[in-house]
Amino acid sequence: MTGQGLPSDEELVPLRGASRLQRGEAATQVVTILGAGAMGTALATPLRERGHEVRVWGTWLDDDLLDAVEAGRNLRTDVPVPAGTKLYHAEELWAALDGAGWVIIAVASAGVEAVTRRVCQAGFDLATAQGVLLSSKGFSRESDGTVHLLTDAVRSVAAEHALGVVPLVAVGGPCMANEVAAGRPTAATFASVERRWAALAAALMGTAVYRPSVSEDEVGLEIAAALKNVYAIALGFADGLSQSELNQLPYHNLRSAIFSRATAEMAIIAQELGGQAATVYGLPGVGDLEVTGVAGRNAIFGRRIGGGESAGEALSAMKATGQVVEGVPATHLAMVLIEQRLPAQADRLLLLQAIASVVDERAEPFSALVGAALSATVPGAVKT
Amino acid sequence: MTGQGLPSDEELVPLRGASRLQRGEAATQVVTILGAGAMGTALATPLRERGHEVRVWGTWLDDDLLDAVEAGRNLRTDVPVPAGTKLYHAEELWAALDGAGWVIIAVASAGVEAVTRRVCQAGFDLATAQGVLLSSKGFSRESDGTVHLLTDAVRSVAAEHALGVVPLVAVGGPCMANEVAAGRPTAATFASVERRWAALAAALMGTAVYRPSVSEDEVGLEIAAALKNVYAIALGFADGLSQSELNQLPYHNLRSAIFSRATAEMAIIAQELGGQAATVYGLPGVGDLEVTGVAGRNAIFGRRIGGGESAGEALSAMKATGQVVEGVPATHLAMVLIEQRLPAQADRLLLLQAIASVVDERAEPFSALVGAALSATVPGAVKT
Repeated sequence: MTGQGLPSDEELVPLRGASRLQRGEAATQVVTILGAGAMGTALATPLRERGHEVRVWGTWLDDDLLDAVEAGRNLRTDVPVPAGTKLYHAEELWAALDGAGWVIIAVASAGVEAVTRRVCQAGFDLATAQGVLLSSKGFSRESDGTVHLLTDAVRSVAAEHALGVVPLVAVGGPCMANEVAAGRPTAATFASVERRWAALAAALMGTAVYRPSVSEDEVGLEIAAALKNVYAIALGFADGLSQSELNQLPYHNLRSAIFSRATAEMAIIAQELGGQAATVYGLPGVGDLEVTGVAGRNAIFGRRIGGGESAGEALSAMKATGQVVEGVPATHLAMVLIEQRLPAQADRLLLLQAIASVVDERAEPFSALVGAALSATVPGAVKT
Repeated sequence: MTGQGLPSDEELVPLRGASRLQRGEAATQVVTILGAGAMGTALATPLRERGHEVRVWGTWLDDDLLDAVEAGRNLRTDVPVPAGTKLYHAEELWAALDGAGWVIIAVASAGVEAVTRRVCQAGFDLATAQGVLLSSKGFSRESDGTVHLLTDAVRSVAAEHALGVVPLVAVGGPCMANEVAAGRPTAATFASVERRWAALAAALMGTAVYRPSVSEDEVGLEIAAALKNVYAIALGFADGLSQSELNQLPYHNLRSAIFSRATAEMAIIAQELGGQAATVYGLPGVGDLEVTGVAGRNAIFGRRIGGGESAGEALSAMKATGQVVEGVPATHLAMVLIEQRLPAQADRLLLLQAIASVVDERAEPFSALVGAALSATVPGAVKT
């Protein structure tokens, strides 16, 4: 987390009225949030608290969500969006973007490229925005099969449209959307290649209870944000084992060993791709894994397997109730990413390999996951 | 975790029959465990599985525990000790030690010095043992008020008795005793100044389900082992907040922010005292904090405060049911340690300070703990 902390006064110069913003007397900014799901609507809470003009645009998949929000119900967070939030349907993209100083991309990871492309096609120049926040988490797969970080996917679309440098800020950290929406205390990390972009974004939307720190390690944050969904499956597995026993003697030691190993493996991957292990050991890694392992669908998926279901059975049962398990495609994409960019590291990533073999039903879950969790051969090589 | 991993063949030379031991064909060793509490009795499970002669000695406070164990009931773990374990009462200390190749100190932290002194007074030379494992966790306070790590306390008593160098091995990692006793998968870390001591101990008692890794960072392990009880109070607090709400909307984000900050602060303290941040980021820190935060009396104490009780009320209620909260004295000792050895770091350890102020009822818990957890000023300076 080298270099983290609150933004300095100098970093806030580009934000008109910044010194007053920090005291909560916000100069109004226009912020367009792309995506009307849980996180998209949740981020309206701190932004409205700071007095900004907040526009939430729903994609072509969000019509039902948006209709419910308009009727005062939020199907994703159970918390109504704050008063004054403006809502836009898919066909109103330009109206949502016109005059926006800030854009927040908060769609499902699979939709990031498509939505960014529509924004560009609508004629909005992301490079001239004060900042573009990317709250979506995961990996992106190009048509040629190459796996990218989502930040690279956004930049790649911008380059296709011959835009200048996009002031891109990746959002990470332990952040359940319903809690952000309800104003529960939340610490986030904003990371950008140019530190001042993240600092400006932190100054824009930080409140007493939503507190962004600033980091320059975009790669480390993106890796942790995407992989935590994968490793949460293994944490859920340990919880599922505990619940499936008649005598209820838990598997806490196993769960903690999994947690440690997940942290070590995320640190290896982050470092080998140019990020910092320290980011993984902070809010975007350890912090986000902590919350993802207790709440959310990836952990539930793992819990079902720990309870005796096969991966296929668990996935079908969850699909039947409309629950998408992001960690499953993320596992596959992570394996491809390792194969493409870090083939020499594959042997050290035993837990990732074990999770992939469980998801694909190539191995018996208990022996695969326990074997990886208790293996002592990997952590040694983490450079810190 | 630099240098961790399974012991090499060369490191096992001092252990007679080591290459066969690793395959589970154990050459019998005599191992004396001092302390008949939860961890003392639990460690009999892997040791007996490896075929060693295991002697469990109870202190002058353990008579009731020992009587119950003899009657087939373990009051601390609910798991009977394995067949063949030999039991010794307080007055049989010499009989328990006579001929022992290995000694494991597993008494409450407040008793480590006194028990070590009795061993020395009984005429047993700890310096000639193959290894002395220290499973007790916490800080030790000398009569002059100086606060030490427990490993230093053991060495100090040995020096009083003019013994040679004690082959001391500190035991850490996420390790609920009842799960170890029941053979649940468990990863531990053994740390010693001389790596071969820890390697030898790992070879002595490692099994398929109890897997020690080896480390040279005794200081980092001891700091993490002692402080996790302190920081678990704050994790419990966040859980208590969640449970106290009528609408049950949890405080997961806060809990994760606390977890991240606890990790960062433990890393600062470990490093400043000569240990490694990487140890804190591994099994002995992140791993042990993970399990301590969900199970155990320190977390319960915090949960009660999160539910609205004062620290004094929570402590009294727990004392009334015989529950000792180790994190409370550990908080005080940690504060003294910082004052004595790291006064310049005090301002960076905001969460530790906040926990101390809550334990002493000097501050309103919510504002103190949330303020510290969301503060962005500290993690930056962690050297990694």
